[in-house]
Amino acid sequence: MGSGAEAATGDSAFLRALLDAEAALTRAQASLGLAPDEAADAVTTAADAARFDVRALALRARVGGNPVIPLVADLSAAVGEEHSPYVHRGATSQDIMDTAMTLIAVRTLDLVLADLTRTERALARLARDHRDTVMPGRTLTQHAVPTTFGLKAAGWRSLVLDARDRVRAVRDGLPVQLGGAAGTLAGLAAYGAPETGALVDAYARELGLVAPVLPWHTLRTPVADLAGALAFTAGALGKTAADVLTLSRTEIRELSEGAGGGSSAMPHKANPVRATLIAAAARRAPQLAATLYGSVAAEDERPAGAWHAEWEPLRDLLRLVGGAARDAAELAEGLQVHADTMRVHLDLTHGLIVSERLSAELAPVLGRARAKEVLTRVARRATAEGRPLVELLSEEPELKDVDLVDLVDLTDPTQYTGSAGALTDRALERR
Amino acid sequence: MGSGAEAATGDSAFLRALLDAEAALTRAQASLGLAPDEAADAVTTAADAARFDVRALALRARVGGNPVIPLVADLSAAVGEEHSPYVHRGATSQDIMDTAMTLIAVRTLDLVLADLTRTERALARLARDHRDTVMPGRTLTQHAVPTTFGLKAAGWRSLVLDARDRVRAVRDGLPVQLGGAAGTLAGLAAYGAPETGALVDAYARELGLVAPVLPWHTLRTPVADLAGALAFTAGALGKTAADVLTLSRTEIRELSEGAGGGSSAMPHKANPVRATLIAAAARRAPQLAATLYGSVAAEDERPAGAWHAEWEPLRDLLRLVGGAARDAAELAEGLQVHADTMRVHLDLTHGLIVSERLSAELAPVLGRARAKEVLTRVARRATAEGRPLVELLSEEPELKDVDLVDLVDLTDPTQYTGSAGALTDRALERR
Amino acid sequence: MGSGAEAATGDSAFLRALLDAEAALTRAQASLGLAPDEAADAVTTAADAARFDVRALALRARVGGNPVIPLVADLSAAVGEEHSPYVHRGATSQDIMDTAMTLIAVRTLDLVLADLTRTERALARLARDHRDTVMPGRTLTQHAVPTTFGLKAAGWRSLVLDARDRVRAVRDGLPVQLGGAAGTLAGLAAYGAPETGALVDAYARELGLVAPVLPWHTLRTPVADLAGALAFTAGALGKTAADVLTLSRTEIRELSEGAGGGSSAMPHKANPVRATLIAAAARRAPQLAATLYGSVAAEDERPAGAWHAEWEPLRDLLRLVGGAARDAAELAEGLQVHADTMRVHLDLTHGLIVSERLSAELAPVLGRARAKEVLTRVARRATAEGRPLVELLSEEPELKDVDLVDLVDLTDPTQYTGSAGALTDRALERR
Amino acid sequence: MGSGAEAATGDSAFLRALLDAEAALTRAQASLGLAPDEAADAVTTAADAARFDVRALALRARVGGNPVIPLVADLSAAVGEEHSPYVHRGATSQDIMDTAMTLIAVRTLDLVLADLTRTERALARLARDHRDTVMPGRTLTQHAVPTTFGLKAAGWRSLVLDARDRVRAVRDGLPVQLGGAAGTLAGLAAYGAPETGALVDAYARELGLVAPVLPWHTLRTPVADLAGALAFTAGALGKTAADVLTLSRTEIRELSEGAGGGSSAMPHKANPVRATLIAAAARRAPQLAATLYGSVAAEDERPAGAWHAEWEPLRDLLRLVGGAARDAAELAEGLQVHADTMRVHLDLTHGLIVSERLSAELAPVLGRARAKEVLTRVARRATAEGRPLVELLSEEPELKDVDLVDLVDLTDPTQYTGSAGALTDRALERR
Repeated sequence: MGSGAEAATGDSAFLRALLDAEAALTRAQASLGLAPDEAADAVTTAADAARFDVRALALRARVGGNPVIPLVADLSAAVGEEHSPYVHRGATSQDIMDTAMTLIAVRTLDLVLADLTRTERALARLARDHRDTVMPGRTLTQHAVPTTFGLKAAGWRSLVLDARDRVRAVRDGLPVQLGGAAGTLAGLAAYGAPETGALVDAYARELGLVAPVLPWHTLRTPVADLAGALAFTAGALGKTAADVLTLSRTEIRELSEGAGGGSSAMPHKANPVRATLIAAAARRAPQLAATLYGSVAAEDERPAGAWHAEWEPLRDLLRLVGGAARDAAELAEGLQVHADTMRVHLDLTHGLIVSERLSAELAPVLGRARAKEVLTRVARRATAEGRPLVELLSEEPELKDVDLVDLVDLTDPTQYTGSAGALTDRALERR
Repeated sequence: MGSGAEAATGDSAFLRALLDAEAALTRAQASLGLAPDEAADAVTTAADAARFDVRALALRARVGGNPVIPLVADLSAAVGEEHSPYVHRGATSQDIMDTAMTLIAVRTLDLVLADLTRTERALARLARDHRDTVMPGRTLTQHAVPTTFGLKAAGWRSLVLDARDRVRAVRDGLPVQLGGAAGTLAGLAAYGAPETGALVDAYARELGLVAPVLPWHTLRTPVADLAGALAFTAGALGKTAADVLTLSRTEIRELSEGAGGGSSAMPHKANPVRATLIAAAARRAPQLAATLYGSVAAEDERPAGAWHAEWEPLRDLLRLVGGAARDAAELAEGLQVHADTMRVHLDLTHGLIVSERLSAELAPVLGRARAKEVLTRVARRATAEGRPLVELLSEEPELKDVDLVDLVDLTDPTQYTGSAGALTDRALERR
Repeated sequence: MGSGAEAATGDSAFLRALLDAEAALTRAQASLGLAPDEAADAVTTAADAARFDVRALALRARVGGNPVIPLVADLSAAVGEEHSPYVHRGATSQDIMDTAMTLIAVRTLDLVLADLTRTERALARLARDHRDTVMPGRTLTQHAVPTTFGLKAAGWRSLVLDARDRVRAVRDGLPVQLGGAAGTLAGLAAYGAPETGALVDAYARELGLVAPVLPWHTLRTPVADLAGALAFTAGALGKTAADVLTLSRTEIRELSEGAGGGSSAMPHKANPVRATLIAAAARRAPQLAATLYGSVAAEDERPAGAWHAEWEPLRDLLRLVGGAARDAAELAEGLQVHADTMRVHLDLTHGLIVSERLSAELAPVLGRARAKEVLTRVARRATAEGRPLVELLSEEPELKDVDLVDLVDLTDPTQYTGSAGALTDRALERR
Repeated sequence: MGSGAEAATGDSAFLRALLDAEAALTRAQASLGLAPDEAADAVTTAADAARFDVRALALRARVGGNPVIPLVADLSAAVGEEHSPYVHRGATSQDIMDTAMTLIAVRTLDLVLADLTRTERALARLARDHRDTVMPGRTLTQHAVPTTFGLKAAGWRSLVLDARDRVRAVRDGLPVQLGGAAGTLAGLAAYGAPETGALVDAYARELGLVAPVLPWHTLRTPVADLAGALAFTAGALGKTAADVLTLSRTEIRELSEGAGGGSSAMPHKANPVRATLIAAAARRAPQLAATLYGSVAAEDERPAGAWHAEWEPLRDLLRLVGGAARDAAELAEGLQVHADTMRVHLDLTHGLIVSERLSAELAPVLGRARAKEVLTRVARRATAEGRPLVELLSEEPELKDVDLVDLVDLTDPTQYTGSAGALTDRALERR
């Protein structure tokens, strides 16, 4: 709602992309002497989205099953009889639809990439600032051992960078579509194109896209690549959202969104709205991608259904991920980290959060099996009596030779963060 | 594109449903004396979709994560200070959103049901008319044994009736939502509702929906039921579409759509456009339903993401299935059946289409193993030499005692349709 | 792992079901005089899973694309030449595969139903016992208004009952499959069956299943119904799991699984293992169901791929949901409810959890707008200063006329549970 | 069923991979002096899958929610008290599970890559051999314009190469997992690892895998990459299968599988079994991938459910795609191309298959609008009367000046293949 990606994938943007594709096709032909320059100019001028009625085109699209047929009729009418032979010449509807979809993808992915960059920068700053902010590491919902918020933020960022790399690679390889009725480019040859490879190249050049080796009417690698990159990006951002939703719970509140959403009934509430919307996108994206992957197995030279099933899911995915990337950028830039609360939580288990360390340290002293017995017993008491582990351990006769200072150190959660700092530093080196 | 379902699920319809839900809530309170009748009248009058700006609401919806918050603000302003306390009183955003979605579902499902009825009637007529039109039965893409087009159409119809029954059952059980902030209806009690059950009943009455036993903010049975019924309906119609696409192939052409779609490049083409669009819907619906089923596992009293992930997929599903049902009705009503081509195809395998029968009939004569040997050999010759099976069989010395008349009968595909007629009759008895 | 459902859906169970289907088919024919009783006895005796090698059958299945072909060969050999003509007579592989799958479904669903009943009973007890145990209601991860654990448990139970009703309805309608090569039952007629309807009835009787109106080789309503009921059940149980996972977090611990899972590294950890496994099942089930819904749109009399794509997902779904139902029963029966912790958490927001009520109560005293202003300001102070709302309100000059006793009552979370008790009672009436 | 991929992903293979992961971990520690070499030898010797009981481990896995806990117990017992401290030291269950899954993926992908190579080579040969074999190009199920089988095979191959490139890239980047309880590697540090980076490197070296920058317990890029590459591969092979299924239909039979599958009832049938099984895999893979993409959004340091939901779908995907690749290789290597039938089919539309060309050629002669009118009328007659287009055109008065020789050429389908040959050549240059 209201994101740049929403505008970039909307009906008007799609209409504009269709017209851009048509105009570029005529210009490409003109650039090779296959059409008069005047025709190219006329089509380019006429291909102005403001002159067309999106809604009426959509209604007329039903008859033939796609919107290009009525669009070409209108565009031909608009350029007049002299130039109309050069409109859509040699192309099939799918050439224009696919090329338009590619344009929309490129335009939306550029927004996504910008927002992913904003996000990774904000996360890098958080990781650096909180390199040594110790917090509970949680596994299967329970405190496990300590970690740092720096490492957590660095992990989020590494996913964002993975997403950025995948999105960028896909974006930079997106091709124009030009194959004619059945992918042989015969229609173009019929109109005099001596070497259709040159025409495809010229078409790609006009639009800043890649020239494919083969028409890809039913060779849907570009769509599948988009599906994968977008589903992954939604999940990657969804990881951050899942953590923010957990850590901003009323009882945990180690994090909070900079500016939460209001409530229609409860004036005090500050909901993690951005994380919620990102989480919703992450729930939907995999199934949208599945539909696109499912359409790869398309029969014939152009299929009856598989292609038609791509249109909306692809635009939905682009829009959803675009919105999620924008929300993620705002979320990361405004995220409030409550380091003091994190510190308090490290003691919630009365020291049990370092039990792994004690297992390792006491095994040589007591023997492995005995160490486990002692720890298990003491752990139960710590939970039941609410007393610190260090205190209970110091009362153990077998441990009376262990220096209390050592025990205090051993049970200090902030001193058991392993390689968290080094891992964070290493992860931040990646650009 | 342009279907009634598209209008019934569009942004304007959703706005209207939201306003209907708000107005009904105030009227329900008034009907129990919890609000002045004047307030109910004022809200009902003000809740006119034409007075609101869908696009602006969508933009303002971002801040709070849903469109009800700005809508309530506008509606409160519209009714004036005196009546505004009775707008949205005791409700939470989700109460209104869910109720509106339910209204949209009911309204769209009524269109779907009407089109399913049109479809099943047309299919019943086809089944009756072609009760004895013999055609090749096909399995794993190959001719197997004969069947009839009547049985095929009766099968299609039985799926449509299954879909109708499921859609109707779900439609008739769709509930209003009214739970307040966390599903306890506490807000309503705070405003003086003595017995909230009566209010939920009144609310349901106002909208012609069912009163639920419990608020269902995170008990999403109604949404899951919709998902299942709609995904099944898409598949059920998709079965017909899959057969029409196959049987209207250029080489097969046993069926053709009454009026096919045009092509932008090939004037002669008559594409099976309706079957194509139905097939596309059938490819998409399962994954949309999966997202909805996935949202059943929603945490807390109202979830952060699971609910938000429902909005678009549910509307998409309703719209898709609505379009598919309309297309199916047109397809069934206009379908052309080429019985003569079906007859011709029965001979394509030179009689092998009845080899199953010959196995059964010759086993007693020749012994089971020997019968299989003879048939396999003769089948190979029939294919290789392109000669009729009956001719080859009559040349077999072991079969010289079998009457040629019998052989002709035995190898007549039109006399090997088993219970196809009886099954068709029985299936047509279902209403 | 190790659940009854796992055994009921395993390779041995599938083999047994295939043999049961074959034996029942011969018995059904014998019951109508179409085969000798001796043959029926011989096939029934020979159809003993212990005599067959599952693994070898699976390997041989590759050639023909399904395991029935080698199974029939082995079974025919086992009964000897005299009876072998009555093995699999008139049937096609899919008749046996579908019937076997139906048997597996019925057998697994019976386990599921038993576990759902255990689950709902345990939840009913929890709902009754905790009818008045007040706890924070949470929306979008934040405390909203109070609710009760009784209402929460009653809600979980209502989903379990919804699942039970849907599973039971599907289970009771599951049909045998009997159509022959292309669904016309012609093969059976060729072998002398005078009225194939009687044979289908007899077949269904032998297996305790329903006799379908039509063969359903490509009319996959039963499979789609299973998909929907199972995906819903996974989600319904997943709702409970999602809440248990949240509420047993280290910081929240309002609930804990009776006996948690261990950890290989941390001796003290008690992970919510059952909720975790249920949650995992709920994540997978929707997509498995989607594949099954996708197979409804199957071409021809028997399809090339759509049917084959059903086998594993259907067994996976049955096994997953069977495991989840068993885990849910254990979870519900052993769940520990920490009512005192719930009570403590009600005060975590210093009284803001009843701000909705205060909005309603103070509006008449101060005017709506003024009440909102005061509350917003006081809410901020309560959060910032960590002081109880009641204290801060009592200091407000405008509220000095409000009785402090009233304020204490108004801000008591345990007195703001709305209709939670009545809703719980009502929900428990459902059986 | 019986494919190498099935063995490579089976329970025994998984057990072996778990043991390989454990043994490599001890060896890696020994290589850095953190464990005695004897311990490494002892663990490596003991980690022999034949000594363990897969089934019993699976049953014991239930308690803790994963199989590593009982496995470590057994392995520790097997190495004896002296060496047992060096078993699984510093690791968490997920380290071993993820590393084992990675090993299984690498081993299965190597099979997949070999089969993709076989497939692309066979397709390259087909494309070369049939560079100029003209056949109908089909769009929306209808003949559109001619194409060549060479171009079709080259297109199939380009998808296979795309799949190969994606699979290979993912395979070569698959990392070991080593993070300890919460991804900080603290357990390893506690046991004396001075620089955990070196240990991760050594671990990766032992297994021939990549050393990751960060532990990826909840940074699931490798799993998502696998999901995408495998779903795409299934679809890519599914495209070939879809075409083979269509083109081997009884009425079309332009292609046939080298050795088709049998039928239990019809001795003559030769079903396209491989294409069917590939098609089934292509139907399932997208939804399995969706579950994996959905698990990217995993909360905490290790999640409760998202990770557990990965295990089976990932193995299923590997197995399915492995089977499909093997089937595709056999299919491609044995495919029979019936060029004569293709030629016959070019005339099925009485010349209309070149109507696009005639539109282009007649427009300059008759004017664009008039040409369309004439063609539309003549096309209808050709279909209705079953007469060749060239004949009907030669009777048109307006065309009497057009040389008949020209008309014959213009309407010759084999002379209207556009750039099919050039495209095929270009596509074959790719290696």
